[in-house]
Amino acid sequence: MAGNSFGQVFRITTFGESHGAAIGAVIDGCPAGLAIDETFIQSEMDRRRPGQSAITTQRKESDRVRILSGIYEGKTLGTPITLLIPNEDSRPGDYDQLQDAYRPSHADYTWIQKYGIRDHRGGGRSSARETAARVAAGAIAKLLLRQSGIEIQAYVSAVGTLTLRKTYESLDLSLTETNIVRCPDPDTAQQMIDLIQEVRTQGDTLGGTVSCVIRRCPAGLGEPVFDKLHADLGKAMLSINAVKGFEYGSGFAGTRLRGSEHNDVFTKDDGGQITTKTNHSGGIQGGISNGMDIYFNVAFKPVATIMQDQETVNSAGEKVVLNAKGRHDPCVAPRAVPIVEAMAAIVLADHLLRARMGQL
Amino acid sequence: MAGNSFGQVFRITTFGESHGAAIGAVIDGCPAGLAIDETFIQSEMDRRRPGQSAITTQRKESDRVRILSGIYEGKTLGTPITLLIPNEDSRPGDYDQLQDAYRPSHADYTWIQKYGIRDHRGGGRSSARETAARVAAGAIAKLLLRQSGIEIQAYVSAVGTLTLRKTYESLDLSLTETNIVRCPDPDTAQQMIDLIQEVRTQGDTLGGTVSCVIRRCPAGLGEPVFDKLHADLGKAMLSINAVKGFEYGSGFAGTRLRGSEHNDVFTKDDGGQITTKTNHSGGIQGGISNGMDIYFNVAFKPVATIMQDQETVNSAGEKVVLNAKGRHDPCVAPRAVPIVEAMAAIVLADHLLRARMGQL
Amino acid sequence: MAGNSFGQVFRITTFGESHGAAIGAVIDGCPAGLAIDETFIQSEMDRRRPGQSAITTQRKESDRVRILSGIYEGKTLGTPITLLIPNEDSRPGDYDQLQDAYRPSHADYTWIQKYGIRDHRGGGRSSARETAARVAAGAIAKLLLRQSGIEIQAYVSAVGTLTLRKTYESLDLSLTETNIVRCPDPDTAQQMIDLIQEVRTQGDTLGGTVSCVIRRCPAGLGEPVFDKLHADLGKAMLSINAVKGFEYGSGFAGTRLRGSEHNDVFTKDDGGQITTKTNHSGGIQGGISNGMDIYFNVAFKPVATIMQDQETVNSAGEKVVLNAKGRHDPCVAPRAVPIVEAMAAIVLADHLLRARMGQL
Amino acid sequence: MAGNSFGQVFRITTFGESHGAAIGAVIDGCPAGLAIDETFIQSEMDRRRPGQSAITTQRKESDRVRILSGIYEGKTLGTPITLLIPNEDSRPGDYDQLQDAYRPSHADYTWIQKYGIRDHRGGGRSSARETAARVAAGAIAKLLLRQSGIEIQAYVSAVGTLTLRKTYESLDLSLTETNIVRCPDPDTAQQMIDLIQEVRTQGDTLGGTVSCVIRRCPAGLGEPVFDKLHADLGKAMLSINAVKGFEYGSGFAGTRLRGSEHNDVFTKDDGGQITTKTNHSGGIQGGISNGMDIYFNVAFKPVATIMQDQETVNSAGEKVVLNAKGRHDPCVAPRAVPIVEAMAAIVLADHLLRARMGQL
Repeated sequence: MAGNSFGQVFRITTFGESHGAAIGAVIDGCPAGLAIDETFIQSEMDRRRPGQSAITTQRKESDRVRILSGIYEGKTLGTPITLLIPNEDSRPGDYDQLQDAYRPSHADYTWIQKYGIRDHRGGGRSSARETAARVAAGAIAKLLLRQSGIEIQAYVSAVGTLTLRKTYESLDLSLTETNIVRCPDPDTAQQMIDLIQEVRTQGDTLGGTVSCVIRRCPAGLGEPVFDKLHADLGKAMLSINAVKGFEYGSGFAGTRLRGSEHNDVFTKDDGGQITTKTNHSGGIQGGISNGMDIYFNVAFKPVATIMQDQETVNSAGEKVVLNAKGRHDPCVAPRAVPIVEAMAAIVLADHLLRARMGQL
Repeated sequence: MAGNSFGQVFRITTFGESHGAAIGAVIDGCPAGLAIDETFIQSEMDRRRPGQSAITTQRKESDRVRILSGIYEGKTLGTPITLLIPNEDSRPGDYDQLQDAYRPSHADYTWIQKYGIRDHRGGGRSSARETAARVAAGAIAKLLLRQSGIEIQAYVSAVGTLTLRKTYESLDLSLTETNIVRCPDPDTAQQMIDLIQEVRTQGDTLGGTVSCVIRRCPAGLGEPVFDKLHADLGKAMLSINAVKGFEYGSGFAGTRLRGSEHNDVFTKDDGGQITTKTNHSGGIQGGISNGMDIYFNVAFKPVATIMQDQETVNSAGEKVVLNAKGRHDPCVAPRAVPIVEAMAAIVLADHLLRARMGQL
Repeated sequence: MAGNSFGQVFRITTFGESHGAAIGAVIDGCPAGLAIDETFIQSEMDRRRPGQSAITTQRKESDRVRILSGIYEGKTLGTPITLLIPNEDSRPGDYDQLQDAYRPSHADYTWIQKYGIRDHRGGGRSSARETAARVAAGAIAKLLLRQSGIEIQAYVSAVGTLTLRKTYESLDLSLTETNIVRCPDPDTAQQMIDLIQEVRTQGDTLGGTVSCVIRRCPAGLGEPVFDKLHADLGKAMLSINAVKGFEYGSGFAGTRLRGSEHNDVFTKDDGGQITTKTNHSGGIQGGISNGMDIYFNVAFKPVATIMQDQETVNSAGEKVVLNAKGRHDPCVAPRAVPIVEAMAAIVLADHLLRARMGQL
Repeated sequence: MAGNSFGQVFRITTFGESHGAAIGAVIDGCPAGLAIDETFIQSEMDRRRPGQSAITTQRKESDRVRILSGIYEGKTLGTPITLLIPNEDSRPGDYDQLQDAYRPSHADYTWIQKYGIRDHRGGGRSSARETAARVAAGAIAKLLLRQSGIEIQAYVSAVGTLTLRKTYESLDLSLTETNIVRCPDPDTAQQMIDLIQEVRTQGDTLGGTVSCVIRRCPAGLGEPVFDKLHADLGKAMLSINAVKGFEYGSGFAGTRLRGSEHNDVFTKDDGGQITTKTNHSGGIQGGISNGMDIYFNVAFKPVATIMQDQETVNSAGEKVVLNAKGRHDPCVAPRAVPIVEAMAAIVLADHLLRARMGQL
């Protein structure tokens, strides 16, 4: 009801404010007997970690995950898995001037409207720091999905006006992690890095797009009416801080095609498996996976915290001028890649378990 | 779990197959004491009804809603409201050739993968007919929202490659219902109608975009983490048949702006009310409404049923050629307008009630 | 949230007021492919039906169930199953004097406190008529359980002070349906019938106890913390009108034993199956079924509507004297037997499906 | 779905195994702005704490609660409240012989049936230690209820065959905490203490009954169908370890009265308030509170761990003889008092918030 949980069967609840003692997640509904590789969890955290490269915030958080429950001798017990991430490098002093001012395009004003009270230190619960807990939980979801062979890979496909104009099939996605911007096309990656560094120097920020591909998803996942697989993926993505849009398969561009161009014709492949000649459907038909690749795009707005003077008002309605201190990302897209993957993994894990219910 | 319900407090459950006895919805959680105007419910149904104009399917359904429970002497009792819509004009014979063939870009194949059984008559539960139940439930949500002054208006903003290049603020949205394509710009509307009729003659179909504006939404609706107001709106829209994408506020285009351009500066209006100078945020910040207009776009793919020969396979994996009979829409956008509004109303009604929980 | 749904995976939502157009239920989450025997559903309805014998209310309702969705060619589709039961024999005139008076030990007063409005005709939504929808849904749950061999049998074990002092193992439960009071011990049954008829003549009413046995439940059903199998059974029973108590296994009497007397010692039976020598646990240990018989008792208070003058107040707080008309049961226990079974079946069906999640 | 959460609006999720790093709870949905008194939370923990008196287990746990999130400057933020209780005095060596043996009337066997894996150290997740997290969460629920004046008091009303034969109205419940067995009648309390000490000397254990009274609950809480206030209270109580039964108001004894004796006649008190002359209803009519005292009884079985040799089988089905070491309670009732109160508080807090939805 208060919206800190996500998923029906594989269900995560996240908790914690950015400048409190800790953040974390409880996963309820992970089946018993799953081997947990803690090194893998930490490697996922490191992909999201602040301070990881020259184009991210320089805030330092080691983001070490401590597992408090649910795992015994390296395997899940079927009980709630609690993942705790202590907060370390908080400098609440950076936020003193914010105590009473509403930062533009942040949640300060709406938070007060909703709750009448807020923790002004760095966004509190509305800080993107909350997504660290999602990445930790997503790592466990990925371990569950691996049992079924499902693989998820996201990458940065646009930074500001710089767009990677290649389909995912034409890219070698294994190159994604070879550069700090997480774009699998080396030339475009370098241009993106240059652009981010240039804009940072101006005290300004950029938006971007993250694309994501899910491979080897079995047919039959997703529920046909409200909990369509892409509807749950869409909600998952739109729940990530700074996201403004979601499209899957042919997306918005597909609206400009004719039906005769857009339809994915069924055929049988050499192995006798039913497949489609094209994949405008993005691997999902009628809300249910069809066994083809699932792919989608996620739009991230430019970071709201800029290093320039900005007018705003305080809670008394008086004009004030803000000049952000803090340490912030010039563009969230590179660090958003593991977050997008984590949320996709949580949705898939949930629907993988839900699919056990469909037939007698 | 099986995904036929939507909403947490104002919660709808829809039921029924397109060619069964009836479809309908149960609304649980509508507060007691709300006056129900049945004429209004029916007028909403008529906006979605097949056969309403020259550019929609010619299938005839009167879509009369019968209220079976929850209302007494014109007012809600606080008990479940059951809305029943009998199916009338089914011609199951039209679907005989489909019994065993997988229609391209339909849910036939995925349905069998999931359930191992299906009602082949016209899509069954995956038919867009299910959305009639949503429109009926949405009408009641609208009546609830009216109590708080909230108004919702959707309109067609693109048909195929024909795009209305005007912002909603520059349009007179009250013109939307003055033409059969539901575009508030009369010139563009006529072009859209012409295009749809031309493409129908070719036995082909079109996609389109529906835009939606929510006015006078109070600040404070939406939950800050997973159930962000725009995340729930996004899921609601993506759960509508044929939807491929959702964006709100500045959307995908906003990713190309700089932070300094995109930020919505707070100010005080003449009435002393805190407001923002621009509204790239689309009325939602940190997942919570801020009192400004909420606006978003929804992408609909071209209709999958085309009046042309199409190759496909049947359940035995054999090649077959389909030539659709049935009576289908050449473009869903005009009839999708009330569906988009209905789902938006259901999300808003739910969050309006949930907001009662935020403070002591 | 408004509490008209029950179950997590096998989930029923009931709707309808006693004197409205109809009552009914929507079942979401029944797996696809289950054969549905409509004759069986009706036979269950007949066990709950008013007017079935000399010791029940003489109100006439045929309680014919109409299936509106979810079943095609005799099998479930995996979609919502809608069960509709039209109301027939309502005599709202019987309730005219009640419009403004609060009947003792009914929900009239609390309903007004909660909703500020009510349908005064016979209890509306708080009428026990709502349980007809549960029996219809429970019949489908029973059909699902049969696939796993699970059998449920309830019977009347006490009427007023007349208590059947035999354990279920010493009774032939197949005799339950051979008499109108549904007590499997013929002598006690006759005494119960005599008692009910005597008390009815006095215009008074009786309470009673219904006992229930679930056989061949596989080990492993139930969740170990909040959703213990007996906790869900308890809630299910306590949600039935007029129920005041629930105990399972050794129950309240078991509190008077020592641990050394109460513990169920594990052993191996002749077939090599692990079993317990006694079954004070009532087939459930730590909230999870252990494969032994599950048994429990449900306490029903005496019917609140009596055919005697009763003092009360009306909504203005003025003293009024009520003399019930209407047609009411002198004791609910005999008709409660199929209701108890139905709710037990719904709980078991839900946990049978939930158990699919426990392991990898 | 996996059942580690309870409540709809005020919703707790507990986590942790008895011999892992920690146990705890996350509360989602507590409104913003509630003052939190940490001393009060700790005092509630101390009432449940092992080692508190001569008649409880001598295991030592300080049960210090650490608040990780959701509270800032002494007030709730409206965000998840995380309560962490580290495990201290675990002696896993005590459980070595149990690794492979199924303790009688414990959850060892059923756990393996359900999950195929278990943490054999002291019950793991099925240990009553889990209830410490409930008491911590319940303390916050109590603070919320205090805002509305609602008070909850439980006490021990029976130990083994020793029953307190007085109604709660005739007792001074403020005496409950003046003795270690938590019985408000000093003479009976002393007899209970003597009995427990005697039975402990024999290496045996006792069951008991806890009674609970809720005062000043406003009318209108509870939902009329499945989520009746007493049905949710019943589930809450039945979800506590070792509970075998629940009854409210007149309970099982009420089944033996006639309707004319049992009905609670409405009248107007001196202050003009509508009230009932008797309260067999236990403060709840039709599932909704009526403003009178709510009272109920909870049956606890004798503790399963006894200090005597017991036969059982191991996972290979071989006979083994157990002699428990560990440190266990001879009777759970005294320590169950705060647990019963905590669960009652959580149910009431949830329904207090849910009641905000009933009317326009």
